[in-house]
Amino acid sequence: MELGVCYYPEHWPEERWAEDARLMRETGLARVRIGEFAWSRIEPEPGRFDWGWLDRAVETLHEAGLGIIMGTPTATPPKWLVDTMPDMIAIDREGKPRGFGSRRHYCFSHAAYRKEAARITRAVAERYGEHPGIVSWQTDNEYGCHDTVQSFSPAAAEAFREWLADRYGTVDALNEAWGNVFWSMEYRSFDEVELPNLTVTEANPAHWLVFRRFSSDQVVSFNRAQVDILRELSPGRDVTHNAMGFYTGYDHHDLGRDLDVLGWDSYPLGFLEMFRFTEEEKRAYAHQGHPDIAAFHHDLYRGCAKDGRWSVLEQQPGPVNWARYNPAPLPGMVKLWTMEAFAHGAELVSYFRWRQFPKAQEQMHAGLLRPDAQPSPALAEVRDAAGMLEELADAGPTAKQAALVFSYDAEWITQIQPQGQGRSALWAAFSSYSALRKLGLDVDIVSPDASLDFYLLVVIPCLPIVSDDFAGKLDAFEGQLVIGPRTGSRTEDFAIPENLAPGPLERLVGGSITLSESWPDRLATDAGGLEAGGWYDHYSGAAEAEFTTDDGKVLCWKADNVRLCTIWPEGSLFDRIVRDAARDAGLPHEPLPEGIRRRRRGSYGLTFDYLRGEVSVNAD
Amino acid sequence: MELGVCYYPEHWPEERWAEDARLMRETGLARVRIGEFAWSRIEPEPGRFDWGWLDRAVETLHEAGLGIIMGTPTATPPKWLVDTMPDMIAIDREGKPRGFGSRRHYCFSHAAYRKEAARITRAVAERYGEHPGIVSWQTDNEYGCHDTVQSFSPAAAEAFREWLADRYGTVDALNEAWGNVFWSMEYRSFDEVELPNLTVTEANPAHWLVFRRFSSDQVVSFNRAQVDILRELSPGRDVTHNAMGFYTGYDHHDLGRDLDVLGWDSYPLGFLEMFRFTEEEKRAYAHQGHPDIAAFHHDLYRGCAKDGRWSVLEQQPGPVNWARYNPAPLPGMVKLWTMEAFAHGAELVSYFRWRQFPKAQEQMHAGLLRPDAQPSPALAEVRDAAGMLEELADAGPTAKQAALVFSYDAEWITQIQPQGQGRSALWAAFSSYSALRKLGLDVDIVSPDASLDFYLLVVIPCLPIVSDDFAGKLDAFEGQLVIGPRTGSRTEDFAIPENLAPGPLERLVGGSITLSESWPDRLATDAGGLEAGGWYDHYSGAAEAEFTTDDGKVLCWKADNVRLCTIWPEGSLFDRIVRDAARDAGLPHEPLPEGIRRRRRGSYGLTFDYLRGEVSVNAD
Amino acid sequence: MELGVCYYPEHWPEERWAEDARLMRETGLARVRIGEFAWSRIEPEPGRFDWGWLDRAVETLHEAGLGIIMGTPTATPPKWLVDTMPDMIAIDREGKPRGFGSRRHYCFSHAAYRKEAARITRAVAERYGEHPGIVSWQTDNEYGCHDTVQSFSPAAAEAFREWLADRYGTVDALNEAWGNVFWSMEYRSFDEVELPNLTVTEANPAHWLVFRRFSSDQVVSFNRAQVDILRELSPGRDVTHNAMGFYTGYDHHDLGRDLDVLGWDSYPLGFLEMFRFTEEEKRAYAHQGHPDIAAFHHDLYRGCAKDGRWSVLEQQPGPVNWARYNPAPLPGMVKLWTMEAFAHGAELVSYFRWRQFPKAQEQMHAGLLRPDAQPSPALAEVRDAAGMLEELADAGPTAKQAALVFSYDAEWITQIQPQGQGRSALWAAFSSYSALRKLGLDVDIVSPDASLDFYLLVVIPCLPIVSDDFAGKLDAFEGQLVIGPRTGSRTEDFAIPENLAPGPLERLVGGSITLSESWPDRLATDAGGLEAGGWYDHYSGAAEAEFTTDDGKVLCWKADNVRLCTIWPEGSLFDRIVRDAARDAGLPHEPLPEGIRRRRRGSYGLTFDYLRGEVSVNAD
Repeated sequence: MELGVCYYPEHWPEERWAEDARLMRETGLARVRIGEFAWSRIEPEPGRFDWGWLDRAVETLHEAGLGIIMGTPTATPPKWLVDTMPDMIAIDREGKPRGFGSRRHYCFSHAAYRKEAARITRAVAERYGEHPGIVSWQTDNEYGCHDTVQSFSPAAAEAFREWLADRYGTVDALNEAWGNVFWSMEYRSFDEVELPNLTVTEANPAHWLVFRRFSSDQVVSFNRAQVDILRELSPGRDVTHNAMGFYTGYDHHDLGRDLDVLGWDSYPLGFLEMFRFTEEEKRAYAHQGHPDIAAFHHDLYRGCAKDGRWSVLEQQPGPVNWARYNPAPLPGMVKLWTMEAFAHGAELVSYFRWRQFPKAQEQMHAGLLRPDAQPSPALAEVRDAAGMLEELADAGPTAKQAALVFSYDAEWITQIQPQGQGRSALWAAFSSYSALRKLGLDVDIVSPDASLDFYLLVVIPCLPIVSDDFAGKLDAFEGQLVIGPRTGSRTEDFAIPENLAPGPLERLVGGSITLSESWPDRLATDAGGLEAGGWYDHYSGAAEAEFTTDDGKVLCWKADNVRLCTIWPEGSLFDRIVRDAARDAGLPHEPLPEGIRRRRRGSYGLTFDYLRGEVSVNAD
Repeated sequence: MELGVCYYPEHWPEERWAEDARLMRETGLARVRIGEFAWSRIEPEPGRFDWGWLDRAVETLHEAGLGIIMGTPTATPPKWLVDTMPDMIAIDREGKPRGFGSRRHYCFSHAAYRKEAARITRAVAERYGEHPGIVSWQTDNEYGCHDTVQSFSPAAAEAFREWLADRYGTVDALNEAWGNVFWSMEYRSFDEVELPNLTVTEANPAHWLVFRRFSSDQVVSFNRAQVDILRELSPGRDVTHNAMGFYTGYDHHDLGRDLDVLGWDSYPLGFLEMFRFTEEEKRAYAHQGHPDIAAFHHDLYRGCAKDGRWSVLEQQPGPVNWARYNPAPLPGMVKLWTMEAFAHGAELVSYFRWRQFPKAQEQMHAGLLRPDAQPSPALAEVRDAAGMLEELADAGPTAKQAALVFSYDAEWITQIQPQGQGRSALWAAFSSYSALRKLGLDVDIVSPDASLDFYLLVVIPCLPIVSDDFAGKLDAFEGQLVIGPRTGSRTEDFAIPENLAPGPLERLVGGSITLSESWPDRLATDAGGLEAGGWYDHYSGAAEAEFTTDDGKVLCWKADNVRLCTIWPEGSLFDRIVRDAARDAGLPHEPLPEGIRRRRRGSYGLTFDYLRGEVSVNAD
Repeated sequence: MELGVCYYPEHWPEERWAEDARLMRETGLARVRIGEFAWSRIEPEPGRFDWGWLDRAVETLHEAGLGIIMGTPTATPPKWLVDTMPDMIAIDREGKPRGFGSRRHYCFSHAAYRKEAARITRAVAERYGEHPGIVSWQTDNEYGCHDTVQSFSPAAAEAFREWLADRYGTVDALNEAWGNVFWSMEYRSFDEVELPNLTVTEANPAHWLVFRRFSSDQVVSFNRAQVDILRELSPGRDVTHNAMGFYTGYDHHDLGRDLDVLGWDSYPLGFLEMFRFTEEEKRAYAHQGHPDIAAFHHDLYRGCAKDGRWSVLEQQPGPVNWARYNPAPLPGMVKLWTMEAFAHGAELVSYFRWRQFPKAQEQMHAGLLRPDAQPSPALAEVRDAAGMLEELADAGPTAKQAALVFSYDAEWITQIQPQGQGRSALWAAFSSYSALRKLGLDVDIVSPDASLDFYLLVVIPCLPIVSDDFAGKLDAFEGQLVIGPRTGSRTEDFAIPENLAPGPLERLVGGSITLSESWPDRLATDAGGLEAGGWYDHYSGAAEAEFTTDDGKVLCWKADNVRLCTIWPEGSLFDRIVRDAARDAGLPHEPLPEGIRRRRRGSYGLTFDYLRGEVSVNAD
């Protein structure tokens, strides 16, 4: 695994570049990411390119021995470009334009902006594609950041109609698939279809799901256009993109297929503060991040990556500027996070950013250097991590014990139709992941398309759409299976299957779900005070009750190697169910102490102490 | 009382219809409501009608012995119609259009849509008006659902100006009535008047009140146009409409005058979860609904109905899809709810819906049948209720003990000018109703226009506008009276009366309110720890203090048969005041146990146990 | 100090005016404010003036011996004016128009409305400028009320661009100052600059800060235009304006420079309820207001006023209509508030309003008279206060002990970039003020431009921008200094200083802030259980640690006479730091009992008991 850093030569005096490069190398960094927000400096006016500064920056970094990751600057089109076609900006769900003045101010469906994005990509790739210093390319930056995947613009509406015609062939097929007869919502032609926003009450969930798929596809095809150009003009280099945390705006399995390496941006403290952790967790881990945040994404994105090649393209090195509160990492955490990425098989950890920029939106975002060019506390930890990595250079691949199945449309469905407030497939995946990881298990998070060979335990927390292929794979699976609610409860077009949930898994679980309830809370159950609830599925079939409350509610059913949870997959009873399944699978199943996590990497076992900010390594 | 069900033949294969009808009859259902969302199937293209399927559905249901309630489909105008006149859609308070893609996408003031609504109503009525299977008509569906009464469209502005000119005659009269001199808000002509939304700070409350009256009138006249057509073309049939729960968007007393029977849609679990019950109540009654939700509306809408004829047009039979959380009813509740409606004098309870539709917006809304056509748990309870109803076929009318006075403009006024957050006349009515019902009293909820003869106790929780007629009726009333805050505090045009509150009731209460305060909370008082507060009226006059705090605040005054509450009508002290008044009226006044409610119907006394989901009947 | 009242003759029958005037005088009132919302009565149609009624009102009040404060009516342009130029209305941050129907429906940048405002000001000033009854003028009313300083209209955009060109000279200078290279946000001309709203994610904080400055300047120049006319046409009269509570929309130091007297509107109960006091404080002081609310603003606006001349132009005399809850003042509070203003050196306390108007938006706002013209409880207290003031007529000036430094751009910066949710410079100032006042100290709140001579203690709670001038003044200051976080952390254009925070104060504190964290909460510290937190600055330098936690965090550093707080300036540890500094300054430093406050005025010491609503005076 290499270490790297994100750098913006355009922010600093040219005289400083060589010193920065030298210091990067000295710190143990081998990669530097540049260029991804520099359009206005590369092309200050329409068609007039200013390559000089970037040529010199590339040369300086290359000469210092750094491998360059070059970004395409399409996340920040300059003002002059927006002014030539003001309708390139996205329209938000409320119908408001999302204008110039920050970043990501474009609509993925705008054909003329797509041409411009291709043009600037081609220009940069022609200039540097064959340069020996360029080791890989990053397309754009954080697709979807600031909720930018969906646009409700006329361009999006037009593209959506074409996409629908492609998908359904006839509008009658669409009407039938969506059940548009329901409220006289039938269309006579694709031209009549509008976007699902600004309806009086919620639009048809099928309409929303399909719009989410379309929106995701727009991102994927936007990205693919750049990938094609980069592969043509810069052969032999990897193409990557930086995904985000707890983010499901587009289908990362789809995007991953078009990239060589999938990167992601890891901000454990910001994510803890901004996402749905409890106030208690936010307090306990304010300076560390919840122990499963980074690991969850490492394993998720490894599963999204073609050939499992992945990296951390941005790693938090100090306080950030964008969370509700922005504490500093506990001493040791920057090293710990780095090693956690290593333990999960990353190819690269790249810190964001080299030096804190004293102006503009991210002026309060720490770097490895302070604004005054002095080292921030993280710098020494990076050097330390570099040393540790050298010692572990012979580590083998990551291990396979348990798999957790997640699909992006699962989360779209639970967002569109939560049925109980906050019942989210993504968070079901996170809490299931945490249940496994608290046992010290090595977990892969995989798509339903992935092979389940070699796993002893598979958890499917919430997977509404189950394909026949996947059902077949589960039939053949001989390890232990844990299946959560809503799994198999929807067809591809957001309808309840004719045989009810779990649809294609009816045979596997020996019955079906006849009624689903959502409950406000988890309640302490009669099963030794363990907590369960949030959802309750009524099952009818041949399985045997494994946990039953005093008033006769069955919280878990068992049929052979399958456990069917009728409650939402979180809370202490669910942890217990997972633990029992691990035991039956012959896997470790004793809970680790609070704050401790483990991960094997080839012949090494790494132990992470999130309460103390310490990492230790044992050879197995 | 009959039982019925809502049915959508257009959702199911024609081959299934006869079996459905047979099963309905076998279950004990006598009525079936159809047609109210079927415009796109009745008229798939402008002017081209497809009657065949509906003819056959009507015939099938009729032949099975079911009486049909036919709905006009005006709540769901098809896309082609919206496309011919895009300005028919309503504009929300923020100025955003409320477009096609769900339902109720029309502005009540749009003249051309009114013509279209009349045209389709006439077409359906001409086709089926004299059919022997048709027993009644429902106009549109849930006027106001999804906050659709008010529209801020150009069509609404134009209609509002005409309505104002009718009401005030001259713009000077309007300026004087509203006090427009206050902030130089004076108009020189009706053409200068705009809608009250999008002002810098709140608009004149008089402006809002009058706009609410206008908006209500638009609903009433929209409805009346359909009623007139239906009466012309379908003589001898009842015309009804389905009102909603905790909903005051239009004046239901006004609408009720134009209908033969007023229906409402009863969803006790959804209402519990979505309205302002405490978290404690939501937990205790999650599977039953608060014991007074259904009863309150039964008594409210009976009082809104011309001749007191009312029904439940939609009754929840299982989990719904639209609340924050959607639990299933406790076994027994569907029967209990049915019998509660009977006890309050309903003519019909119609379950919504026959069979759960596996697609579109309400796919998670339970029916009497599951999506796979198997019975849901409710079906057996319906059969059970049908049996019980047969035994009670000789029950007499409902009883008269206590009346609670409510007017829709009372709620509009407290919404427009709460003065203390959340101080709502509707919720004052609900808590007052609950105070009475917890004593086992039979309550009528009546308009100020209703007769008060025969009542021994009358409660007026909050009635800002008191007419001279109503004041005269109260002068003559010899039973016990309880009067709450803000009563008589406003003129018809939202001004403080010249003699201050309670305006025309000054003589009755022997004084006036010199100052009103709103307080954040109810506080425990010195009166035996009973809780009171939320509001505090300073009274000056001849009445005697009935409850006084240690620091001299008088929480209830008494003048002859009148109790004047200076606190908000909720909490344990208010319960005590109501109890004392019931005692003085010679009515029962011992609180029932938690969860128990009673209601007399002719010679029968029905007891409802909401904690256990049980109903029992005693002959008196 | 005089007493006065706000009066609207246009609301009442002409026959009543003389009686009102007589009663005012009898109550002890010497001033009456009129005219500020009367445009539609002064000019009922374009160009047609109706002076008769106002002439007679002025005459009547003058003859009764009242000095008149005449308002310009520009806060309420009439409908006919708006209709002639609909684009004069402001556009809100979301892009929505803020239309006619209440007040303040104008954009400060609209050139044609500025002309109209000048025209009506000139008309009124020509009519009454030399009238002997007129003692002063109030411009407009509550600039910024209802969030009206910022407008996102085309007129504002155009004016903003001109303002920027003035400020920066070249667009390259602007790009450099703002760091627009950051996300390719560079402009090629001032014409390319847009307003900072409706961006995809937050706009550049420099962009926002500069837009706030521009918006403030628009208010100041709008006001100055009126001041110039009034000074020309009404020589010898004071010009004033009424500022608001906890309001920082424009720079009051700038506005104050153009006025003779700065007024403000004091609503202690409404402010308590609507601003960020704890629920505990809201309950404890519901009928009194927090003991420091009025005092804080008295001292703040005295510091904003040219020559320190200030007044209370509106004083709450009973419940208001606009807070979440609106209780009545405890008996005694109206007198107490009056005397608190006196103690801080007010020239005038004017009650709002004379008589409660029974119609329109403020019908629930109490006056000295009830709507039925009877006295409200406040009237007797005003009479009482008038008597007490007569006895204290010889009081000298206010005292100088401690100064608290506040600047409006400090609050803008912490609003634009809180970094930790809710970390506000304004509230830091309030809590620091409260810390000082709980010790019984006399406090001046001053601008960084003010002289610090004569003070023994200076507190700078949070002042991001520190000028070299101010730094020099602090270097020379020999009293005790307490400096809070973020001070000196920004340049004039919202950049981090090259030498980091505290920028120009580096020498003074003997070091710099190398890292800043924001924390969710205040935590109990090891320092005797005192609470601290919310923010944490890492300091590196020569100062000595004064408070250190067990795990080594230094919460306060000391260098000579300077205490540097690294925590947010609120909570019990901060109170302790202030107390220690007061002790070192030789000032009183024993905390007063709960609810007690003191203030010296010349030879008198006034003691205020907020729990009991009592004021007492001791000659020193």
